[in-house]
Amino acid sequence: MSGIVTTGEKRLVLASGRAHPVLAQEVAQELGVEVLPMDAWDFANGEIYVRYGESVRGTDVFVLQSHPAPINTWLMEHLIMIDALKRASAKRITAIAPSFPYARQDKKHRGREPISARLVADLYETAGIDRMISVDLHAPQVQGYFKAPVDHLMALPLLADYVSTKYGDEDLTVVSPDAGRIRVAEQWAKRLGGVGLAFVHKSRDPKKPNQAVAKRVIGEVAGKTCVLVDDMIDTAGTIVQAIEALHANGAASVVVATTHPILSDPAAERLRTSRVREVVCTNTLPVPEDKQFEQLTQLSIAPLIGRAVRAVFDDGSVTSLFDGAV
Amino acid sequence: MSGIVTTGEKRLVLASGRAHPVLAQEVAQELGVEVLPMDAWDFANGEIYVRYGESVRGTDVFVLQSHPAPINTWLMEHLIMIDALKRASAKRITAIAPSFPYARQDKKHRGREPISARLVADLYETAGIDRMISVDLHAPQVQGYFKAPVDHLMALPLLADYVSTKYGDEDLTVVSPDAGRIRVAEQWAKRLGGVGLAFVHKSRDPKKPNQAVAKRVIGEVAGKTCVLVDDMIDTAGTIVQAIEALHANGAASVVVATTHPILSDPAAERLRTSRVREVVCTNTLPVPEDKQFEQLTQLSIAPLIGRAVRAVFDDGSVTSLFDGAV
Amino acid sequence: MSGIVTTGEKRLVLASGRAHPVLAQEVAQELGVEVLPMDAWDFANGEIYVRYGESVRGTDVFVLQSHPAPINTWLMEHLIMIDALKRASAKRITAIAPSFPYARQDKKHRGREPISARLVADLYETAGIDRMISVDLHAPQVQGYFKAPVDHLMALPLLADYVSTKYGDEDLTVVSPDAGRIRVAEQWAKRLGGVGLAFVHKSRDPKKPNQAVAKRVIGEVAGKTCVLVDDMIDTAGTIVQAIEALHANGAASVVVATTHPILSDPAAERLRTSRVREVVCTNTLPVPEDKQFEQLTQLSIAPLIGRAVRAVFDDGSVTSLFDGAV
Amino acid sequence: MSGIVTTGEKRLVLASGRAHPVLAQEVAQELGVEVLPMDAWDFANGEIYVRYGESVRGTDVFVLQSHPAPINTWLMEHLIMIDALKRASAKRITAIAPSFPYARQDKKHRGREPISARLVADLYETAGIDRMISVDLHAPQVQGYFKAPVDHLMALPLLADYVSTKYGDEDLTVVSPDAGRIRVAEQWAKRLGGVGLAFVHKSRDPKKPNQAVAKRVIGEVAGKTCVLVDDMIDTAGTIVQAIEALHANGAASVVVATTHPILSDPAAERLRTSRVREVVCTNTLPVPEDKQFEQLTQLSIAPLIGRAVRAVFDDGSVTSLFDGAV
Amino acid sequence: MSGIVTTGEKRLVLASGRAHPVLAQEVAQELGVEVLPMDAWDFANGEIYVRYGESVRGTDVFVLQSHPAPINTWLMEHLIMIDALKRASAKRITAIAPSFPYARQDKKHRGREPISARLVADLYETAGIDRMISVDLHAPQVQGYFKAPVDHLMALPLLADYVSTKYGDEDLTVVSPDAGRIRVAEQWAKRLGGVGLAFVHKSRDPKKPNQAVAKRVIGEVAGKTCVLVDDMIDTAGTIVQAIEALHANGAASVVVATTHPILSDPAAERLRTSRVREVVCTNTLPVPEDKQFEQLTQLSIAPLIGRAVRAVFDDGSVTSLFDGAV
Amino acid sequence: MSGIVTTGEKRLVLASGRAHPVLAQEVAQELGVEVLPMDAWDFANGEIYVRYGESVRGTDVFVLQSHPAPINTWLMEHLIMIDALKRASAKRITAIAPSFPYARQDKKHRGREPISARLVADLYETAGIDRMISVDLHAPQVQGYFKAPVDHLMALPLLADYVSTKYGDEDLTVVSPDAGRIRVAEQWAKRLGGVGLAFVHKSRDPKKPNQAVAKRVIGEVAGKTCVLVDDMIDTAGTIVQAIEALHANGAASVVVATTHPILSDPAAERLRTSRVREVVCTNTLPVPEDKQFEQLTQLSIAPLIGRAVRAVFDDGSVTSLFDGAV
Repeated sequence: MSGIVTTGEKRLVLASGRAHPVLAQEVAQELGVEVLPMDAWDFANGEIYVRYGESVRGTDVFVLQSHPAPINTWLMEHLIMIDALKRASAKRITAIAPSFPYARQDKKHRGREPISARLVADLYETAGIDRMISVDLHAPQVQGYFKAPVDHLMALPLLADYVSTKYGDEDLTVVSPDAGRIRVAEQWAKRLGGVGLAFVHKSRDPKKPNQAVAKRVIGEVAGKTCVLVDDMIDTAGTIVQAIEALHANGAASVVVATTHPILSDPAAERLRTSRVREVVCTNTLPVPEDKQFEQLTQLSIAPLIGRAVRAVFDDGSVTSLFDGAV
Repeated sequence: MSGIVTTGEKRLVLASGRAHPVLAQEVAQELGVEVLPMDAWDFANGEIYVRYGESVRGTDVFVLQSHPAPINTWLMEHLIMIDALKRASAKRITAIAPSFPYARQDKKHRGREPISARLVADLYETAGIDRMISVDLHAPQVQGYFKAPVDHLMALPLLADYVSTKYGDEDLTVVSPDAGRIRVAEQWAKRLGGVGLAFVHKSRDPKKPNQAVAKRVIGEVAGKTCVLVDDMIDTAGTIVQAIEALHANGAASVVVATTHPILSDPAAERLRTSRVREVVCTNTLPVPEDKQFEQLTQLSIAPLIGRAVRAVFDDGSVTSLFDGAV
Repeated sequence: MSGIVTTGEKRLVLASGRAHPVLAQEVAQELGVEVLPMDAWDFANGEIYVRYGESVRGTDVFVLQSHPAPINTWLMEHLIMIDALKRASAKRITAIAPSFPYARQDKKHRGREPISARLVADLYETAGIDRMISVDLHAPQVQGYFKAPVDHLMALPLLADYVSTKYGDEDLTVVSPDAGRIRVAEQWAKRLGGVGLAFVHKSRDPKKPNQAVAKRVIGEVAGKTCVLVDDMIDTAGTIVQAIEALHANGAASVVVATTHPILSDPAAERLRTSRVREVVCTNTLPVPEDKQFEQLTQLSIAPLIGRAVRAVFDDGSVTSLFDGAV
Repeated sequence: MSGIVTTGEKRLVLASGRAHPVLAQEVAQELGVEVLPMDAWDFANGEIYVRYGESVRGTDVFVLQSHPAPINTWLMEHLIMIDALKRASAKRITAIAPSFPYARQDKKHRGREPISARLVADLYETAGIDRMISVDLHAPQVQGYFKAPVDHLMALPLLADYVSTKYGDEDLTVVSPDAGRIRVAEQWAKRLGGVGLAFVHKSRDPKKPNQAVAKRVIGEVAGKTCVLVDDMIDTAGTIVQAIEALHANGAASVVVATTHPILSDPAAERLRTSRVREVVCTNTLPVPEDKQFEQLTQLSIAPLIGRAVRAVFDDGSVTSLFDGAV
Repeated sequence: MSGIVTTGEKRLVLASGRAHPVLAQEVAQELGVEVLPMDAWDFANGEIYVRYGESVRGTDVFVLQSHPAPINTWLMEHLIMIDALKRASAKRITAIAPSFPYARQDKKHRGREPISARLVADLYETAGIDRMISVDLHAPQVQGYFKAPVDHLMALPLLADYVSTKYGDEDLTVVSPDAGRIRVAEQWAKRLGGVGLAFVHKSRDPKKPNQAVAKRVIGEVAGKTCVLVDDMIDTAGTIVQAIEALHANGAASVVVATTHPILSDPAAERLRTSRVREVVCTNTLPVPEDKQFEQLTQLSIAPLIGRAVRAVFDDGSVTSLFDGAV
Repeated sequence: MSGIVTTGEKRLVLASGRAHPVLAQEVAQELGVEVLPMDAWDFANGEIYVRYGESVRGTDVFVLQSHPAPINTWLMEHLIMIDALKRASAKRITAIAPSFPYARQDKKHRGREPISARLVADLYETAGIDRMISVDLHAPQVQGYFKAPVDHLMALPLLADYVSTKYGDEDLTVVSPDAGRIRVAEQWAKRLGGVGLAFVHKSRDPKKPNQAVAKRVIGEVAGKTCVLVDDMIDTAGTIVQAIEALHANGAASVVVATTHPILSDPAAERLRTSRVREVVCTNTLPVPEDKQFEQLTQLSIAPLIGRAVRAVFDDGSVTSLFDGAV
């Protein structure tokens, strides 16, 4: 038969945007590779230019970008990097967005709103990804916004094991800061060995019509070490109100655990001056020095991402990374 | 200039599958139209054949199908009807699926599962719809599974107003049967004037390790008329356990309100013999005679669908149909 | 250069729906593999749930489903299985539908009908297949309904060789039961060594205007062993009329050969009580025990499918499987 | 509400390629319009340039092209004209291809062949059509190669009524020139009042192994006026052999009826010198003067196309144009 | 016939992003409408939220956004606005991007670069536009990056008429600042009545190998009033070098004309302190107060955009807006 | 784990259309392979039939076609060949179109024109290519008309090195024949060591209003050996006028260099009888014997294409082939 025959091989490459170089380095170290060299700069009007320093022809590329503020810039950089990979003939492109942009706008709350999370999924697919890796999507349904496979990693084992090790001897109760995320609190309660569950509920007391909206705690928290869990902390308004409500209801102490430390102003200040005992988070997003505060502990998500990348490259199962011991 | 010029006009047509002819008739009556004549039959191996009895060229078609068991048959019939409309040159095709098929499989709970709700959305778009109307999607994120516009109607005002009129004088508390749907219970509590909120939580008591999983009620229900709310009742297992748990915690009585009465066996039997005071639902799904039971009240969803269809045809706002007075 | 390099490898996996487990086992045996473990069950309203028991990441999956009644259920199961494979990161997905669903609705016979065969092809491509294997499509043009490659296998050599071996000494004539499938009968006649050809034609005799439609045989059949060939037998109405017409025209005996034994009621009863000498078919569809009858012989299609799967996996030519010795 | 409101109107425009201006003029006359002015020329290397002479913004355009030799040129011109219409903001584009290009390559006869008819359908959809009008597709399944609606017109009533008027008093039999098109012959036989049916079959006589392939006539033709029907006549080889075989079997005379007069060399010469009594065709393709011959009668297809265009524009039913009185 | 029939109507709506409200007001005034009310704000991490204040169901929406720095933010806002319009059932969505984002990255200059202009076109089509209006694309080929129709407006008549009126009595020569844009300069020269043409060319003198790259003027400029034309001025580095080179070659004076005043730092300072006589531009981009300078004249592009919008809505020809009197 | 595991391998195959077999042979020789056997012929009406003589299942196919007149025929053959490869299960299909069809129609010069170059790109992607290789696209923006990766090769090093070797000792100046291609001339000037630059400009002298349009040379050419560069020579009208204008301005001699020798009539005659010293071109297009002329030198592009194919197959970098030493 006509033609040239050779044995196939495959090459893993890790590329990274400019939003969170520390995380990229940590993931590269987990994998034992160097981050792909890339020139990238901004034109004065904000347009981004990128060019890779090495051929990526035929490679299995994992392209990581974190999405802190200014989020639109980092999102566009991610899309442009993907376009360049596609046009440079990468064989397969897996985007890694540890903290998925616009994840909260995942439905129309009212008429004439966008569903920006679906739009973002479409933008990624248009740019040319073959698959997506993300951590703790605000709603797991966002997986379904992609036609491509999504590896949805969970930080819960990482965070819960830390909490368990440090506070496991105390009388724990898991608390959801609002009505919409009790399912996750339930998973935490199970992981921590079947501890109690409560949530904070914003309502108007129908018997006291002139009184403003109050935070009511539903479930028992008196005397407990409360583990207040949420997927992200943005301005920390809700969280700090929940901390206060828990203390008002007799909580012994409150530990906050979250995956994504957005920490928009004035979150750091609010938490520093609150009665919180500790805030545990991951580094899916960078926390700049001026937003660090005494009670904050940041755990690296890089080992989890590294294991997922390796499993995807090796065609191994990542199911164990999804659901931990839960 | 060359050519023939005429003024445009548009024509609304209502087509219906065979799953729930009563609902189609009710919607047609709301609109003041006849249902489009259609021949439809099944081949012996289950293949479906349809043919419309009138031209639909250039029309604005609304094609309604309900999705009770056997759900795959009715779904395929819906898709085939849409294909026939498209090939018969309908100008715009709006599918109406009051009870969206496979809505519960809206995420991968574990690895190697499908996301069937997204698949179904894609099947509808592939068949050729321009838009979708549905009622109380299991997760509102399913709207984002469509590229096409979705009009997501809410039965809450219909159901809540019925409950309010009938039980408004009693001491009400809204209860969610599990941790995942408390957000909806919260909307009910608001709609009913700021009444109390509780939920039922399945857990193992960590202090009694040998004891089986128990239903715990979180929130105050003693002496209350509990309104137990859920989007659908399938086999009624969870609901009946919740009814029992509420009575065990001192509830005065329990009224169940739900949008979609799937009522798979043995739901009707379970509810009939339970301590439930009343089960209120809509007719997004037909309830066959042998599944009717004394405590069941079915309210027609046709006025809501009819208003939405008319508004879509007239390019009016349907936002008011989304969120009622909430 | 940065990155990790390994040699590629590929893994063949065979998955199967629940419609025809015997065929799946036979194909697996041909290939020397186990069928991929899968959990699958039906919700009470007919919704199907599936989950694979092993990782399929990076594999070359062949997913087999037969399509007997209830055909819409098995079709949806097939689509859902494909969605799960895609989201589980299978590298390539080849659907095997030995008996293609809705193959007969392959054109608009009249206005306002669907073209369901194209719809089904689109549904498969939407769900995520990369290629399709099928046997004896009702019209070979259905291959063109796919953008993806289709391996169109032919059962003619299998069936004709059986007929040739058993009846080759007799004076054979190939007969088409209607005007639309004479091309296939012509291929049979060639395969059987250039034997005679005839067809049955439904018409009104213009000279006897008051007489009802009659079956006329065109071609010589008197004294012949007639081999009546068709791609499928559904209710067997046409076939049994043809058998009668052939005998009325002096046929010595009639053997029926068909690929797809749909055998909808009352086919089995009709054939059992007819003057047919033998009905030869394949097992692209299961024939349940209560539809078996004395004159029926079912040949396994598994060797043909197995060879095609292996050739596709090995990138070998399957052309020889298409056209046999014809 | 903000905005400007006006009543809508719609404008029909007829554009035409350069392959068959006479047909375009006839269709324009049927509609009472002028053909849209267009500049079109060929660069020396064969590249085609087109530009419309009038705005088509917002119009309902019907763009007609016939496809005689050199067929690839006329096909590309059609595609380029459609691209120009799309970019000039036509509201809806209906291509009219009376004789569909590459209609015969509608399946893979053997491995490693294209399915060019599907490719052509995809090229039209890629260029930007919203719908297609064609006449007597070689296989009606080609309708299903389009996602867009296809109006499939039939010339049978036009041709059969001509034959009926002229030869209705004689003893007619309809004959198919090969085994693959007997279904159409059957429709003719029905339309002509239930006359007889026969076909010509190419085979080797198994009892005379050294003899070459012969044309055998199956069905009775002795003493009959044979109406030999086919969708197209290309080089007329098969047709002329059939004419001879019919005469050899005692036919009184043979009239040929066909929709598409491709008449590639040496068709005109072959037919002129054959024993054919008359060849009736339509003008879906132009017949240049040097291919005209005494026995040829060409009927205009323009009234049929004109009625279809008008019905599509007016959103009327064209079903009656599909199946005539059949 | 079944159904409800009404006459169609169409409604024009103008929506605007937040980047350049003055231009939106000017366009609204040209059209005699109000800008569609919209709530829009930024979350602390930069995520954008928008919601329209009025129904847009069935409307013909023109959604305007200018793209100054921070360009990625304004681009994402535009895309999100389009998504919201699509999901709110706008009938047709025309994006207006007077200054197309990333227009300069319209090809791969070297390997492993993106083609960001195509990416941006794809992002707009993914978000849901039906058509695009833009002014003076950096390369006119960018029109072809869209499948959708693009109305490509030209500011040349606006700018050239201003120059002609003011400087027409002097001895003019049109100058291109580099080799790549001489075609546009040629159009200017023609528009100004056939005046002379020159360009500035960056090169190394081969006879003086140690000397740095120099700007050489090709064409005659001594004693002339030079009109230096370019589509955009970014940092003004090239332009200021060209001004100097022209004066070094004896130019009497230099007037700069450009469509898009990006004016990134230090453009304003550079031009203010240069020997330029006047800089004429349009307001496709806003020029904030601190970037204004004495020699700068900004002409409104709103009349041109307004006429294009009106013509698109009315299905009139906009060809006259493309090429002006050229 | 279930399944069959083998090591992957990949096979390079070179297929070729019928337009330029000599080039295909040269490329095959560069690669050390045979051209894939293929049957191809034309039906009398121009329809093309192709079938490959060997299996291409799983192969990495490069399918080469040149595009001389009749260009539409060769383009359709290319598309049909790609369709056949796709349906024959080629793993990856790279089209090689050394001289891209319709490259000049890359924008709308005026309203109501097509953008045929984008159309052609879409046709290729619809037919099923995974990537494209081309040489010296008329506008490099055409790369962006593809979603697929494009390897854009440059003939400049090949041509310029030839010119440099032969004429490097003379006093060279690079000349562009019109205003639109000076950028390329600039690259030539750089490649030749920083030589001078000029262009020919068509204009009307404003001071002599009654005089016809004249060719003006801008830049110094007196006494120089002018290298007149363009991407293609079609009818040679512009080139011959430029040669005359250069001589009129005192040029010592003129050498023409071009990539694509379209040489439509009367190009060969015009050039043969002109004062041109030599015309250097590549063989991206065949030059038939009757268009050869004394001054013509044709250099083979096969080594460049061969290196690109090999690099694509080996996943090596082809960047060095893009920009040569420039």
